[in-house]
Amino acid sequence: MSQALDQPSVLTPTQARALFRTGATTPTTSGWCRGYAQANLLAVPRELAFDALLFAHRNPGPCPLLDVTDPGDPHPRGVAPAADLRTDLPAYRIYENGTLLAEVADATEYWRPDLIGFLFGCSFSFEAALSAAGVPVRHIGQGRNVSMYVTNRPCVPAGRLSGPLVVSMRPVPPALVSTAIEVSARHPEMHGPPVHVGDPAELGIADLDRPDFGDAVEFAPDDVPVFWACGVTPQAVVMASKPAFAVTHSPGRMFITDHSDAAPL
Amino acid sequence: MSQALDQPSVLTPTQARALFRTGATTPTTSGWCRGYAQANLLAVPRELAFDALLFAHRNPGPCPLLDVTDPGDPHPRGVAPAADLRTDLPAYRIYENGTLLAEVADATEYWRPDLIGFLFGCSFSFEAALSAAGVPVRHIGQGRNVSMYVTNRPCVPAGRLSGPLVVSMRPVPPALVSTAIEVSARHPEMHGPPVHVGDPAELGIADLDRPDFGDAVEFAPDDVPVFWACGVTPQAVVMASKPAFAVTHSPGRMFITDHSDAAPL
Repeated sequence: MSQALDQPSVLTPTQARALFRTGATTPTTSGWCRGYAQANLLAVPRELAFDALLFAHRNPGPCPLLDVTDPGDPHPRGVAPAADLRTDLPAYRIYENGTLLAEVADATEYWRPDLIGFLFGCSFSFEAALSAAGVPVRHIGQGRNVSMYVTNRPCVPAGRLSGPLVVSMRPVPPALVSTAIEVSARHPEMHGPPVHVGDPAELGIADLDRPDFGDAVEFAPDDVPVFWACGVTPQAVVMASKPAFAVTHSPGRMFITDHSDAAPL
Repeated sequence: MSQALDQPSVLTPTQARALFRTGATTPTTSGWCRGYAQANLLAVPRELAFDALLFAHRNPGPCPLLDVTDPGDPHPRGVAPAADLRTDLPAYRIYENGTLLAEVADATEYWRPDLIGFLFGCSFSFEAALSAAGVPVRHIGQGRNVSMYVTNRPCVPAGRLSGPLVVSMRPVPPALVSTAIEVSARHPEMHGPPVHVGDPAELGIADLDRPDFGDAVEFAPDDVPVFWACGVTPQAVVMASKPAFAVTHSPGRMFITDHSDAAPL
C-alpha cells in the first residue's frame, strides 16, 4: 500500500478505510479519495442520543446530518454500509466527562453496545470543487491539516448539550472570495457558505497562528481568512457540556464515505 | 368572534389560537389565517423522542420538521413562542398503544411532563400559493377538509417506529398539474412536490371517495388526482407501531404558526 499512500487522492473510499483498519494513520484526510464526501463522527450513548440529534437539527450549519446508526451498530448504512465506524477512521478521540481520555487508531474497545453514531458533513468535501473553480486550498499545498478555531459564537443548545461554534479557516485571495462563497454555498450538507470573512477578532479568535485544532497555515500576501462552520463543533460541545462518554473522530482525520462529493447526499 | 368565524382567512394566528383555546373548533383549518404556515403535531414521551426525531430525519417528505419542544414544555419556541400546544389546536387525538382513545378540544389533561412535541409542515401552507398561481383548491371551494389516504408505501423505519406513508390528495385540472408541481416543489418544508400524480391504485388506494382521513372531495370533469406526502403519516405510524402513548392533532385541524407561508422557515 505504500504506492497508495503516496497518492491518497486516487484511493477509493474502500481502499482508504481498509488502510486505516490496519492501523495506518495520516495527519489529515484532506485531499484523500478525491470525488468522495468525508464526514465528522460523534458517537454517544443511547440516553444522550435525542439531545445530540436535536442539537444537529438546531445547528445545521456545523452539524449537517448525513447518517445515524442504530444503537450498537457500527455500520453507517446510509453512507457506507460495508464500513465499520469502530476501525475505519485514521484516529479517534475518546471523551469521559468532557475530558480527552485517549486518542486511538481503533475505537473497538470503547464501542459500547448502546452507542449511536452520528455522521456530519465536512468542508474537506468541497475542497476539490474549490480547486476546480481556481481557488487555491493552501493547507493541501502545504501538506498540513486545516486550521480550526473555537469561536465566541454559542450554538443553539439542545437538552444537556451546549457549547461554542468551531470553524475551519482557509486563506483565500481577495479576488476569489466570492467564488469560494458561491462554490461552498452549493453544498449545505458540507456546511454551506462561510460564516465569516475577514477579521478573526469578530469570532473571538486572537491569533490565527495558534489554531485550537489542526495546523497553522501560511497565508500568501493579501490572502483573506475565510471561516466555515466545522464538524468539530460537537467535540467542543462535548468538552463544554461534559457528558459521561463520547467518541469522536480526531479533528481533520475524517470518515470517508461512499457518496460522491459532487451531489448533495 | 362570530364575525371572525365567517372570515377565518383574515384572522391572525394569535386570534385563531385564542379562539381554539376557548374550546371553539372547525372541521378544518384549510384556508384559515392566509399568509401563515400551518403544522402537524406529534407529541410523544421522552423515551420515544429519539425514535420520533430520527423517523422525521429519515422521512423528510411526510415529516418536514419545523420545531421541537423541550420535555413538558408546551410552547413551540421556534414557530410560535406565545402559543400553547395543549390548548391552541382545534382538536386533538389521544392514542394509547396505537388505539385512538379520545378526540378532544383541549389536551391539557393528557399533557404529561415528559411529553416532547414535534411540529411538521403542512400542505395547507402552500394552498394560498396554488390559488395565486391559478390552481383551484377544490376542497376549500367545497367547504370541506382535504382527502387523506393511507398508502401501500412504507416509510423508512426508525427504532420502534414504522408504518405507511399517508398522502393528501387534490384534484387538479390537467393543464395545471405542472404548475401545482412547481409551486409545491418550492416548499420542501410543506412536503414539497407531489409523490404521485394519477392512478390512485399505484399507491394502493382503492376508492378516492372513501378517504381514510378528512372528506371526500368532488372532481371537476378531467381533474387529475395529485398526491402529496402528508403530516398525518406520524399518526398512521403510531397506529402501526403501537407506542404506549402519543398525542396528535386531528387530521386537517392544524396548529397555526406565526411564520409566513411565503418563505421557507
